Amino acid sequence: MPHTDEPDQVSRKLETILRHAAQVFADKGYEGASIRDISRSSRISLSGMYYYVRSKQEILYLIQIHTFKTVLARLQDSLRGVRNPSERLRILVHNHLAYFLQHPTEMKVLAHEDDALEGAYRQEVAEIKRRYYGIAVEIFEALHEDGERRRLTPRVAVLSLFGMMNWIHTWYRPQRDPQADTLSRAMSEMFLHGVMNGHHPLARRSLGNGRSRANVAARLAV
Amino acid sequence: MPHTDEPDQVSRKLETILRHAAQVFADKGYEGASIRDISRSSRISLSGMYYYVRSKQEILYLIQIHTFKTVLARLQDSLRGVRNPSERLRILVHNHLAYFLQHPTEMKVLAHEDDALEGAYRQEVAEIKRRYYGIAVEIFEALHEDGERRRLTPRVAVLSLFGMMNWIHTWYRPQRDPQADTLSRAMSEMFLHGVMNGHHPLARRSLGNGRSRANVAARLAV
Repeated sequence: MPHTDEPDQVSRKLETILRHAAQVFADKGYEGASIRDISRSSRISLSGMYYYVRSKQEILYLIQIHTFKTVLARLQDSLRGVRNPSERLRILVHNHLAYFLQHPTEMKVLAHEDDALEGAYRQEVAEIKRRYYGIAVEIFEALHEDGERRRLTPRVAVLSLFGMMNWIHTWYRPQRDPQADTLSRAMSEMFLHGVMNGHHPLARRSLGNGRSRANVAARLAV
Repeated sequence: MPHTDEPDQVSRKLETILRHAAQVFADKGYEGASIRDISRSSRISLSGMYYYVRSKQEILYLIQIHTFKTVLARLQDSLRGVRNPSERLRILVHNHLAYFLQHPTEMKVLAHEDDALEGAYRQEVAEIKRRYYGIAVEIFEALHEDGERRRLTPRVAVLSLFGMMNWIHTWYRPQRDPQADTLSRAMSEMFLHGVMNGHHPLARRSLGNGRSRANVAARLAV
């Protein structure tokens, strides 16, 4: 750490570097970007940059670890004391979308540069991601805790949910699309109950009254 | 088009170039990759490359247009004669996953380099994507054609579905995960009926018999 700057100034400078680096990585890709590009964008000299970070790898690591740690910590805070699994699912979706709609550039970098970290940096980020993924799997398992047979493996279900949420970096337009609250409700309900949401055209058209909606749903699910 | 090669040889050479280019773009990103990298990977000389393609832009365009045209044409073929909206949805999901599980490298390039094309190339690809997206929206609308009020806009629903499907390029492992048929069924049912699939723990715990499952679902959906 540099000894000439005050701590506040250090963290502000580092924040500036990371913010510009995320934009440069998002525009050019990690492979295509150089420390020189980040220096140019942030107007911090090359030697100034190396005062705060050791390498392009370290910059990417700092962006990833900061983002995942923040998202994970906020999620753990919001889940505290909430027992109902559906409610916990809604909190996870809201926490994820609210954060990433505020940080679309970082979201693109995380989505694209999943493979770019190496060695200890990679392991440390992977460990945080595993904990985050683990919470989502726990919530999914709890939704079916009475042991009803599931058609879906937790892995496919949870990664489909992350896909739904993370893909927004390719299409979300703040002026056009719903805000975080509305979007979170829509995605949570889609994940929990589907777009048909108890609405089965087949049921009314061709099946008698003797069959319950649940049976119809089971038939359709084959 | 070159006049010294036979047509078959031309298309084989071009295919070789595009296959290697997709791998190079997937590894280094479009910005970070050069025609020289593709030449090295495909073992076709630089001058040989320029005999078949004009630029890196043209290569990316050819990869994108070929992929989207193929996926669209196969979808249109498979949908022919099928009227039931749920069945059409299942066909769309299966067509998409079956193709991209076979072409994971191209899938990664399409997911990451959505913004890299310019001008006429970009417009032509956008037009094919619009038609593909349009089919998905039509299917979604038909699922609710009796005019029942929808909580979801078609845009959010359809782009969430594409997110679920396209995100597999980040996690799918052929040895570990379900094959295309099983995965397609799982994702179709998740999209149509949700992971709860008519299973509402709240209903049994706290609501009387007088309320139908549909009412419970409606309450939970708020």
